[in-house]
Amino acid sequence: MTAPDDRDRLARVALNRLAEPGDLRVLRLVREVGAPALVDLLREQRDGRGVHTDVAERLHGLDPERELADAADLGIRFVCPGDTEWPAQLDALDRCEPLDRQGGAPVGLWVRGPLDLAAATARAVAVVGSRSATTYGADVAGELGHDLAQAGVTVVSGAAFGIDAAAHRGCLAGDGPTVAVLACGADRAYPAGHRSLLDHLAATALVVSEVPPGAAPTRNRFLTRNRLIAALSLGTVVVEAAVRSGALNTATWTARLGRVLMGVPGPVTSAPSEGVHELIRCREGLLVTRAAHVLELVGAVGDDLAPVPRAEQTLRDRLPAVQRRVLEAVPVVRAAGVDSIARTGGLSVTATSRALEALLAAGAVERRADTWRLAAPMAGRDDPPP
Amino acid sequence: MTAPDDRDRLARVALNRLAEPGDLRVLRLVREVGAPALVDLLREQRDGRGVHTDVAERLHGLDPERELADAADLGIRFVCPGDTEWPAQLDALDRCEPLDRQGGAPVGLWVRGPLDLAAATARAVAVVGSRSATTYGADVAGELGHDLAQAGVTVVSGAAFGIDAAAHRGCLAGDGPTVAVLACGADRAYPAGHRSLLDHLAATALVVSEVPPGAAPTRNRFLTRNRLIAALSLGTVVVEAAVRSGALNTATWTARLGRVLMGVPGPVTSAPSEGVHELIRCREGLLVTRAAHVLELVGAVGDDLAPVPRAEQTLRDRLPAVQRRVLEAVPVVRAAGVDSIARTGGLSVTATSRALEALLAAGAVERRADTWRLAAPMAGRDDPPP
Repeated sequence: MTAPDDRDRLARVALNRLAEPGDLRVLRLVREVGAPALVDLLREQRDGRGVHTDVAERLHGLDPERELADAADLGIRFVCPGDTEWPAQLDALDRCEPLDRQGGAPVGLWVRGPLDLAAATARAVAVVGSRSATTYGADVAGELGHDLAQAGVTVVSGAAFGIDAAAHRGCLAGDGPTVAVLACGADRAYPAGHRSLLDHLAATALVVSEVPPGAAPTRNRFLTRNRLIAALSLGTVVVEAAVRSGALNTATWTARLGRVLMGVPGPVTSAPSEGVHELIRCREGLLVTRAAHVLELVGAVGDDLAPVPRAEQTLRDRLPAVQRRVLEAVPVVRAAGVDSIARTGGLSVTATSRALEALLAAGAVERRADTWRLAAPMAGRDDPPP
Repeated sequence: MTAPDDRDRLARVALNRLAEPGDLRVLRLVREVGAPALVDLLREQRDGRGVHTDVAERLHGLDPERELADAADLGIRFVCPGDTEWPAQLDALDRCEPLDRQGGAPVGLWVRGPLDLAAATARAVAVVGSRSATTYGADVAGELGHDLAQAGVTVVSGAAFGIDAAAHRGCLAGDGPTVAVLACGADRAYPAGHRSLLDHLAATALVVSEVPPGAAPTRNRFLTRNRLIAALSLGTVVVEAAVRSGALNTATWTARLGRVLMGVPGPVTSAPSEGVHELIRCREGLLVTRAAHVLELVGAVGDDLAPVPRAEQTLRDRLPAVQRRVLEAVPVVRAAGVDSIARTGGLSVTATSRALEALLAAGAVERRADTWRLAAPMAGRDDPPP
């Protein structure tokens, strides 16, 4: 796509002002005829009585150049398709089934902050979840944000209370870039308690919104905002989400976009984990417990494979086969004679005696008169069964 | 299969005494030539110098009738294929790939307790897990055992400390039958601290073992015991299992048998949940959080569907479409005029005004002079986004 000329950019600003986020009627027409032609069409629209429609009236009243200048005064720029900073992955929204009759790639985004939006989201993962998070959920989200940052992954989230904020903060602590996508103007703080967090993100990273500066958050803007969080990212991790959490809306967008949907489990007794468990149970989402699992799923095939957790090698693992077989035949509780152990192990008495002597030297068994039993450390291990 | 005659039963007792559990050489020969013929063959076996082999000597020294009588004195019977009490699902072990070169359906089982083993395990689920369980894990296992019992499902487990014991006890509390499968003789208590639990199970339910009365538990007997827990059950639920837990051995048997493998998640910060998470993450096991999920998976297709957890219907859900659309356009924080709300909602000012009046009556919005905002209970909800 070529860089947008001024006419295209100004038309997009006008349409952005005019239409609500995710308004498919407008977004589809932009794709079909282009933004400037659509603005011209709308500007001349008349109703049955021949007077300008409400939309046409509003368009006449708009001054996109002024909008851009006012936004610039707030440190906010308008990024649209064709700009080098435009994240191409958003275009997938145009090929994605709508949700509640909304969807589509936005005509542009209002961006506040020093980073390049395309570069910052070239390898990004969304970490979202409940605003009524538990300390467990917030801890996990923070650690995830931190570890993803350390792995060079940008964390995208919604700057809400709870999981979102923990993920942003974790990412900052990991010296990574993090992108907050808001449902209100990029100059506003919602929730108000996150004013300093948002200012910090705007000063060091990015705050992004589909709605113009000054716009208020509405329920609909939260829902259409969620599609941007999903579409900017290679995948979405849901950390905690009750059965009816907004985070599950982001999860639905992620699945629709064919991006990787992931969930972090928690105690089954915790309501904020119930929505996540349901995602995993119904095999819509994949279980992850740490950043390494996320990286494995969003990374290139074969790269970024998460190490499989392994218990430490035990003495038993290091024994030669015959000694291990004899050791397995030594009773856990009562001591037994060589004959009995040989029978249980299916080995000759000679081989069994030799192995028992070696096991005695290794501290794995104890001898008492003519009987043998497991040494305390071998018998006392809890898992696996002795 | 016809009922075993005395010769067959006594031959099986002899072979049970002679061979370790899961010894495929013996079990395959029993299938090929039958137990009595195998005993005759082994009894005459001679080594290179023409003297009876060790095995032949041991067979000559055995008195199966006496074994049965001694077991009966301990309240233990020998159940073998052809008995009405024989659980046919164990025969699947003969068609199942060995694990560590062991496997196969046992030649018989030593059974202690008043229930019929086949009837008690006709609809059974294994609940297993770590011996070093957390209180969380034990609570979940107990509740699972209780709820499965209440649903008429028998809980099979290994009577170990931790998850096993909690599952047995939960099942008892739910007035259900529960079956303990031991790695030692059915007369013995391992762990010793579970003497009273095991005696209670033997008095009211069932204690089962592949090894004869008096036999000591060995590591190998734990591992081969696990195949019986898996094979007796329609599926296995792993509640907590560290990365190297014996419960994962039961999980492997479950998968090999093609039975349903399930896992209960927990905090990702909890080591005893790590093995379970790995099972789910690698899609070997299915996530379950409650008995209803287990019943759905092991039940008949279409029956026993678990209810999908739903949040309560809210006022918003019950509103007519236009009112809901207007409500969604009302800002969360600042109040807005009818014009602005109509524009955001994409509706006429008249329709918007009418809807706002209705929403006011329903308590969903507040009017202040000529502006409207969400009523506190609508704005204050945490999830989903307002």
